[in-house]
Amino acid sequence: MSRGRVAPGRQVESDVVDVGEFQFESGEIIPNLQVAYEAYGEFTGTNAVVVCHGLTGSQHVAGHGTDSGVSGQARAWWSDIVGPGKAIDTNEYYVICVNVPGSCYGTSGPASDGPDGEPWGTDFPPVTVSDWTRAQRLLLDHLGVGRLHAVVGGSVGGMNALDWAVQYPDDVERLVVVAAAARLDPQCLGLDAVARRSITTDPNWNGGDYYGEDRPDPVEGLGLARQIGHLMYLSKDSMDRKFGRRSAGRGGRGDMYPADPAAAFFPYREVESYLDYQAEKFAERFDANSYLYLTRAMDDFDLSEGYESDAAALAAFEGEALLVSFTGDWHFTTDQSESLAEAFRAGDVPVAHHVVESDHGHDAFLVEPEKVGPPLGDFVTDGVDGRAVTDTATDGGEPDTEKDFAPVHSSLFSR
Amino acid sequence: MSRGRVAPGRQVESDVVDVGEFQFESGEIIPNLQVAYEAYGEFTGTNAVVVCHGLTGSQHVAGHGTDSGVSGQARAWWSDIVGPGKAIDTNEYYVICVNVPGSCYGTSGPASDGPDGEPWGTDFPPVTVSDWTRAQRLLLDHLGVGRLHAVVGGSVGGMNALDWAVQYPDDVERLVVVAAAARLDPQCLGLDAVARRSITTDPNWNGGDYYGEDRPDPVEGLGLARQIGHLMYLSKDSMDRKFGRRSAGRGGRGDMYPADPAAAFFPYREVESYLDYQAEKFAERFDANSYLYLTRAMDDFDLSEGYESDAAALAAFEGEALLVSFTGDWHFTTDQSESLAEAFRAGDVPVAHHVVESDHGHDAFLVEPEKVGPPLGDFVTDGVDGRAVTDTATDGGEPDTEKDFAPVHSSLFSR
Repeated sequence: MSRGRVAPGRQVESDVVDVGEFQFESGEIIPNLQVAYEAYGEFTGTNAVVVCHGLTGSQHVAGHGTDSGVSGQARAWWSDIVGPGKAIDTNEYYVICVNVPGSCYGTSGPASDGPDGEPWGTDFPPVTVSDWTRAQRLLLDHLGVGRLHAVVGGSVGGMNALDWAVQYPDDVERLVVVAAAARLDPQCLGLDAVARRSITTDPNWNGGDYYGEDRPDPVEGLGLARQIGHLMYLSKDSMDRKFGRRSAGRGGRGDMYPADPAAAFFPYREVESYLDYQAEKFAERFDANSYLYLTRAMDDFDLSEGYESDAAALAAFEGEALLVSFTGDWHFTTDQSESLAEAFRAGDVPVAHHVVESDHGHDAFLVEPEKVGPPLGDFVTDGVDGRAVTDTATDGGEPDTEKDFAPVHSSLFSR
Repeated sequence: MSRGRVAPGRQVESDVVDVGEFQFESGEIIPNLQVAYEAYGEFTGTNAVVVCHGLTGSQHVAGHGTDSGVSGQARAWWSDIVGPGKAIDTNEYYVICVNVPGSCYGTSGPASDGPDGEPWGTDFPPVTVSDWTRAQRLLLDHLGVGRLHAVVGGSVGGMNALDWAVQYPDDVERLVVVAAAARLDPQCLGLDAVARRSITTDPNWNGGDYYGEDRPDPVEGLGLARQIGHLMYLSKDSMDRKFGRRSAGRGGRGDMYPADPAAAFFPYREVESYLDYQAEKFAERFDANSYLYLTRAMDDFDLSEGYESDAAALAAFEGEALLVSFTGDWHFTTDQSESLAEAFRAGDVPVAHHVVESDHGHDAFLVEPEKVGPPLGDFVTDGVDGRAVTDTATDGGEPDTEKDFAPVHSSLFSR
């Protein structure tokens, strides 16, 4: 590598492409869908890997070399997994990550300007995971990328990846679904509904019309929604370790929320301080309407929609699949991933369900790259026979619970 | 039983007593603490049983014969357990239930009138579980009840019962702690903090000053807080069974919350409809400030506070104890009850930890009386040797996990 020349794995394209008229699943049409993406590495014709981001993520999956002004989970959110020499090696693969419609990092969404030059707000068409996938397909067409070596997604990005196998089964050789499920369970649906309510009951939300210098953003409501989400991403064990019941000291109260005079007798705890801090950071970087749009898309996703079963939805897929789940994750459970594995097995798709023992909750897919990277990297390279890939099924599909599993939650008397 | 005469077990006293000046744990003093209670049965001198209510419960534990205009969990909330011929048999025992300070069912709290004739609001002193116990003791003194045959409490009422064993160890012969813990874990602390924020960010909360005909109550915020609480009381399994992902139909949207135009494309699900309905009912019956006060008391409770350990806090207690926990409860876990059982065992207190297999979540202590009644009734009558009472400890305190337990959450592949 000569001085002054960027190594292939460190090449970054960062752009916004107008893919023209776009019809949403709802039937509504917008004249111009802008699609923001970031791509890493060199395209050889057969080495394209699409990475699908999570709910509040962005196209900046590795994000080196760009300075887009974004922060938090939107910035280089999986740089431990994607990059030169990493599990998804940008020296080998051409990795593309696309910001989904409805989000707020460059792809059209409620905060974008509509045809009248004003932000769409809630006039932006409702968005579904299926719309995300079709927008990604259009962007890839624009880039001249046809069949994909792999589609990889975590959390709701894993739902997006699953939708690739349904909508474009011939386009995907290897599918990686990390910490995801065929659909949300009603507990998560309930929590998401409350989170959305906390936004729409913030008077500053104003029916979704809060854009412009003269109007305050609904930061309180968006902050509360994020706090509910954050609690879903953590586990009891990780919270015990991280915060316990410790006091954060009196000085640290965030000033985002109204003072609560009768609370002064009680400690402001570390757990609250952490949630407040994260809420403030999040409200600075994310659009409240986008949070409504994207959680609705996640809640709405159901792999089997329009089919008789999950297995039927996946029947046309002829690639290989890796499912990665985490024992401490109660947002998307190991149980749900196993159910998904059974759907793949029913269609004789080569599938591995790799269970990671972790007490980090849903967050594990972001914070434990040392456990996620090896199976993911080996699968992308070698498929289900990859060295670090394990599978719950032994001997014809029966999960070997004794050998491979820890219980979803910590065992009864473990401390 | 002659016609026209009420059977002893059906006798109900329902009254509010002024116990005079009261100093709270915070040091603050109010000139007159009003204490509302309900009592059932006839006092014989040795048959008094105190039942401690949960967070939003009331003194109307069985509630027959009264018409207090309350509803929901405040009305006859444990009439399957307490009553003539029931597990806690009011033909045998004199059962007293006291509304706790800070609540809103007759005992002084933020919605009560202060010395100036105006509602206290957030000027009402902060309230702790210790204040609840002392107020109950004062009320019993007024009634001429000394030593108690038993103190029984569920959920935060179980914390209240534990506090009896710490503050008045000589006054309690038998202690029953149902679905409770020595302290909340940080996950629950976090959820409670978000719930309180949803109240205090409701503009109608107005710093706690919303009383009076001319001011709207913070029903949206209180409703959200209740929805978060409700989700904590249910389990994934019970929600799966009760709601699944079913749509409730378009017509059913509650009108408590602002319309969200971009949501119309998506179904209004049964889970959301249920939560909305429950939130509306709750906001009609409960005071928002009381919700803030009582959740703070719950969050603050720590059995070991002022002691070296839970065991040290319980060292002076010489009675017997029954702990009942539920395998599907993630608010107060079986794990936490076992830890509590170990604290009793460390002090050689005869204790039984009776684990109920249930997928009803925390709600189980209210909705599964057929599983709760027998051990509870037999323990109140016969102590830890009661016929239906089981214990996790066999052979010197080691829990027999193989025999007695199902995991806290449903097993990995159970459906």
